[in-house]
Amino acid sequence: MPMPSSAQRADGALTVTPASGLSHFAFRYDASHDARLEAATLRMLDRLDRTCGGDVRRSALATDTSGATLLTIHVAGPGGAVQGVDEDESYTLKVTPEAATLTAATDVGAMHGMETLLQLATNVRGACVLPAISIEDTPRFRWRGFMLDVSRHFEPVPAVERQIDAMAVAKLNVFHWHLSEHQAFRAESKLFPKLTSVGSDGQFYTQDQMRAVVAYARARGIRVVPEFDMPGHATSWIVAYPELGSGEDLHGLAIKFGVPPGEMDPTSPAVYKFVDALVGEMGAIFPDAYFHIGGDEAPGDSWMKNPKIKAFMDKHGFTKPDELQAYFNQQLLPILKKHGKQMIGWDEILNPALPKNIVIQSWRGEASLSAGAKQGYQGILSAPYYLDGEKTSAQMFLADPIPVDTTLDAGQQKLILGGEVCMWAEQLDAETVDSRVWPRTLAIAERFWSPQNDRDTSYMYQRLRRVSAELEDVGVMHLAGPERLRRNLVSTAEASAQPETRAAAGHALDLLASVTEPFSFGERYNAQRTDARTSLDRLVDAVAADPPARQEIAGAVDALIGKAAPGKPAPHAPDTSGDVSAGGRLSRQDAMSDLRRRFAAWQDAVPALLTLAAQSPRMDDAGPLALLWGETGAVGTQALGYLDAKTAPTAEWTEHAREVLDRAAKGGALVHFAYVGSLRRLVDAAAALPAPQTAAMGSDAK
Amino acid sequence: MPMPSSAQRADGALTVTPASGLSHFAFRYDASHDARLEAATLRMLDRLDRTCGGDVRRSALATDTSGATLLTIHVAGPGGAVQGVDEDESYTLKVTPEAATLTAATDVGAMHGMETLLQLATNVRGACVLPAISIEDTPRFRWRGFMLDVSRHFEPVPAVERQIDAMAVAKLNVFHWHLSEHQAFRAESKLFPKLTSVGSDGQFYTQDQMRAVVAYARARGIRVVPEFDMPGHATSWIVAYPELGSGEDLHGLAIKFGVPPGEMDPTSPAVYKFVDALVGEMGAIFPDAYFHIGGDEAPGDSWMKNPKIKAFMDKHGFTKPDELQAYFNQQLLPILKKHGKQMIGWDEILNPALPKNIVIQSWRGEASLSAGAKQGYQGILSAPYYLDGEKTSAQMFLADPIPVDTTLDAGQQKLILGGEVCMWAEQLDAETVDSRVWPRTLAIAERFWSPQNDRDTSYMYQRLRRVSAELEDVGVMHLAGPERLRRNLVSTAEASAQPETRAAAGHALDLLASVTEPFSFGERYNAQRTDARTSLDRLVDAVAADPPARQEIAGAVDALIGKAAPGKPAPHAPDTSGDVSAGGRLSRQDAMSDLRRRFAAWQDAVPALLTLAAQSPRMDDAGPLALLWGETGAVGTQALGYLDAKTAPTAEWTEHAREVLDRAAKGGALVHFAYVGSLRRLVDAAAALPAPQTAAMGSDAK
Repeated sequence: MPMPSSAQRADGALTVTPASGLSHFAFRYDASHDARLEAATLRMLDRLDRTCGGDVRRSALATDTSGATLLTIHVAGPGGAVQGVDEDESYTLKVTPEAATLTAATDVGAMHGMETLLQLATNVRGACVLPAISIEDTPRFRWRGFMLDVSRHFEPVPAVERQIDAMAVAKLNVFHWHLSEHQAFRAESKLFPKLTSVGSDGQFYTQDQMRAVVAYARARGIRVVPEFDMPGHATSWIVAYPELGSGEDLHGLAIKFGVPPGEMDPTSPAVYKFVDALVGEMGAIFPDAYFHIGGDEAPGDSWMKNPKIKAFMDKHGFTKPDELQAYFNQQLLPILKKHGKQMIGWDEILNPALPKNIVIQSWRGEASLSAGAKQGYQGILSAPYYLDGEKTSAQMFLADPIPVDTTLDAGQQKLILGGEVCMWAEQLDAETVDSRVWPRTLAIAERFWSPQNDRDTSYMYQRLRRVSAELEDVGVMHLAGPERLRRNLVSTAEASAQPETRAAAGHALDLLASVTEPFSFGERYNAQRTDARTSLDRLVDAVAADPPARQEIAGAVDALIGKAAPGKPAPHAPDTSGDVSAGGRLSRQDAMSDLRRRFAAWQDAVPALLTLAAQSPRMDDAGPLALLWGETGAVGTQALGYLDAKTAPTAEWTEHAREVLDRAAKGGALVHFAYVGSLRRLVDAAAALPAPQTAAMGSDAK
Repeated sequence: MPMPSSAQRADGALTVTPASGLSHFAFRYDASHDARLEAATLRMLDRLDRTCGGDVRRSALATDTSGATLLTIHVAGPGGAVQGVDEDESYTLKVTPEAATLTAATDVGAMHGMETLLQLATNVRGACVLPAISIEDTPRFRWRGFMLDVSRHFEPVPAVERQIDAMAVAKLNVFHWHLSEHQAFRAESKLFPKLTSVGSDGQFYTQDQMRAVVAYARARGIRVVPEFDMPGHATSWIVAYPELGSGEDLHGLAIKFGVPPGEMDPTSPAVYKFVDALVGEMGAIFPDAYFHIGGDEAPGDSWMKNPKIKAFMDKHGFTKPDELQAYFNQQLLPILKKHGKQMIGWDEILNPALPKNIVIQSWRGEASLSAGAKQGYQGILSAPYYLDGEKTSAQMFLADPIPVDTTLDAGQQKLILGGEVCMWAEQLDAETVDSRVWPRTLAIAERFWSPQNDRDTSYMYQRLRRVSAELEDVGVMHLAGPERLRRNLVSTAEASAQPETRAAAGHALDLLASVTEPFSFGERYNAQRTDARTSLDRLVDAVAADPPARQEIAGAVDALIGKAAPGKPAPHAPDTSGDVSAGGRLSRQDAMSDLRRRFAAWQDAVPALLTLAAQSPRMDDAGPLALLWGETGAVGTQALGYLDAKTAPTAEWTEHAREVLDRAAKGGALVHFAYVGSLRRLVDAAAALPAPQTAAMGSDAK
């Protein structure tokens, strides 16, 4: 994962480590190899050890390398000194029962091939093998990005590096670093030290750290595009250097999240002088050809209220703030050009006044992106890939930068460079970032890399589960992080609790987490009024979107009553498009017993959760949720009873069951139950059973 | 934990967050407060949020601070610009139902007080409170260190910082950083760049990183003492700069672990010139008054073989290498003095030729330490605190730098500055460091801080369990790390396994891990011949020493058959001194059912483990272990049966049971079962039951 462009399986397999005995793995370079490729090879060996046992690295690094070479690495050259949009990322990987060959034009292509090789390695009856296969692979899109907002909440360097490690697994190639916001400016400037000393809470990246992250990313074939958002989202700049602002009264760094205030003054020459110097300074740290200027959500309220700015607009014949922002961006162009940078920005920078070599990042959606392409602008798609929407992997996987029914012609399609996954940080911190980003981003990365016709969500989920486990090998904490938070929720509850009570609470909480997922960004904000001081350490932070149980339950329900009819979900019903089963081929009987076991376990877990909710201030809203969870378990058990007996329920039961599910669909304690759609199908199937025999007899007897 | 010098509980409690409603926590400084103290206060608020729910920080940082001040922080001054051995670390903490006051002479004392306050916070019926108490606290020893070897295996900066975070929780105050070894030199030198470019595998700390770690430690009241080991353990130096060596043929950095070769030439003026420059460079990065020169394990074989060195020794009348090493150390003294440093080194530097202001770190033991003190040398004890001995927390807790029966007089006792926990890294990496170091180091830290008469191991374990959970709040991975490794052991097993099979394997592996612990360093080395290329990702790396189950099982056995007789363990029997129960007050009946449940679960888990062992090359030695584990479960079940029926087993059964336990005591797959001592007591108790009624009748009938 992502699926290669083309792969031909053959018979047999190449043995890396035999079932009994030590590995005899060896490799050689038969063309160029620089330090970057060597480091990548060592990382590959370490990870191969994880699958194949501890002898692969030892064998490969032994000074005595007699014995057959298993892997030949043929790389034509290192690739660009600064990786560009058009870097050749293709590779071929050929495995026969005798040997493997990895061929690529660049280090970057070779590294992609190594990730594929690692995913092929598997244990069969105690032997570790690579199946015989011939893969020719090249990405569908050139720009496959992941944006991380480190400004609303800070992410320390190790957390950033973990994301880059995982990006390499997913074959993503652009790390878009959102470094400034109303809440903080996170990049040390030696020219303008107040940007961080005044414009942050003290948490920021030193220039050495930023250079180290750029080097870390380059070592993994990943570009780093920094974003300094202007002229809006700029409170931190203006608090540090008030002369940049439009005269608003800002009262320090923003605590609340949202759009205004905090806009620069596009009419001030001092602003351009400042930006010129800053782009020069940051441009030297970030060698990428692109520089992201943000450009989003500057409604210009402050401009319209400022007489000096209003006069400027009148003089230039600008009637709307949009026109002033286009003017602002026009002034930035020569500055970026002077420093050797091309402009990228959000939707709002799209304006006919700007030249065609800029890149538009679309947070407004695919239609907006297409509209840009029709005007001749390059673009990348982000709207469907906002992780804080807490959508399923399947939903995001199916969203395509160039859908099948696109109205773009071939030339216009070439302007769509790719897409970017976006992780905004209003409700995110270093403890939760991994579980919010992964494994779902793997599904989107496959969309960016693999052929357009790769749309089988069930097969996608099967592979997602496997690679999700592998992500922990590169240090990602997407499973361990929420576990720790849950353990902490239990350990900080009432100290007098007995060990057995705590064990039961821990078990119940893990079970609850396995079937729940976070409220979306908007839902959580509305319920909690999250601001920069809100602690992110409650149940909602200890669960992950799109839990595997969703597919498992959907698969069991499929096995029991047949697949759901395709088509739009009913109005007001939960969106069940993510409820695809993952390769479940359960018998009807196994499905019945699997579901019975689950529903019973939910009901059993309720008392321990109620106790925990009473003991932990951080769980004080979880009591009603636990009771509701138990109710859904009871409804499920009863529905199975009707289905098993092939007896229709009474109308009263059906009404009750649907009422429970309607309440359950709303969730609680900032989380949703991930299985409500499947459970509704069970209830509907029970309700559709033929009426009981007695009623039929009554009818006959009339 | 550690226990304060003096504490008086009073009635009532101070409410931080009421059962219903928001926190009204507020604090103020009524004397000096610098940036360090402010940062420490913010960290305290974050952690208080974890216990008390998310409103404490929000409330404390709100601009509207009307309402009662709950905590007054009175700190006389920041303390030394460079923290010294004699820094005043004392504090008083007074909590009444109305308010709390923390008083200290220095930031360091105040930070210790904050840790104590955090441990007091507890939830009672949904309210978060601090119990009313009056604490006056000061450490017993001035030097409470933790040594981390980052040379045999590297630890990245975040892993180092996690240890420092946890040290602060434990009120330890010296981070001893073992930066050079045969395997690698880990500190960037700008004067001698080959020390890392040639003398390491590329993994080292930049000077910026080292300065950042020093600052990070200082922010937490912790000194950093760097160690550059010489003249032995110096292969990495000599590989980089051969002119430092004694003419040995070194063949690159050491792969094998052990003592020789790799000794500097004490007769070469170039060596002293080099060391002078290096101490100057590193001394500026590490401002501490002490500089650790290592000095251990330089047997001098290379010196005796080198004619030039031998001639030098003859000329000076040295007959043994010891004398040449004392000469070496004498030459170092003026160098250290020139750079404002005092010498600290391992046992071997103890020599009458050296002055009395040096500090001896004793890896040889308490007797060696006392011998030094009697000669007037200052010392710190380390021998009993080698974590890779995999001893229990209780064993290490009971080892005292100044035992009750010490033969030192009061003046000599003052020379014992304290002790250091040592974590050597032959069998350690970044993934396992947390679980090897914590929570056991908490027990040793209490020995260094708390009064000598604090020796109740059962009470110690009760508190250890609680603080162990809190350690995850500062980011320590001692629980999450092994969990991830176990999950990985399952996920990398045969890919074709069904999800249910994997779930069963995961559950069985977690259960096995909960009752096993690693082989000691020596046992593992003998079994595995560990070297620098060995992967540290097997079962032994996924279990932790002294698991809680040891105490739980011991407690249940105590409840069932009474406490074990004190005294020495029998010859060849496993050392059961760690088998103390932790506050278990089980009824006899509860103990019986607890043990029955455990023994049955072990037997049930065997098949899933056998399957896993067959599927995973990294578990290929776990099959026999699993079978043996099941056998012990069966023995336990049978012993309970005899005890329940109050019927003596046959001699045949007893013989069989003891044979199983003898095999179990040896362990397997590099791990030991942690409960063998307790199970042996059960078997002994069964064997000691009165003979069955029939035999008695037979006797009567005679």
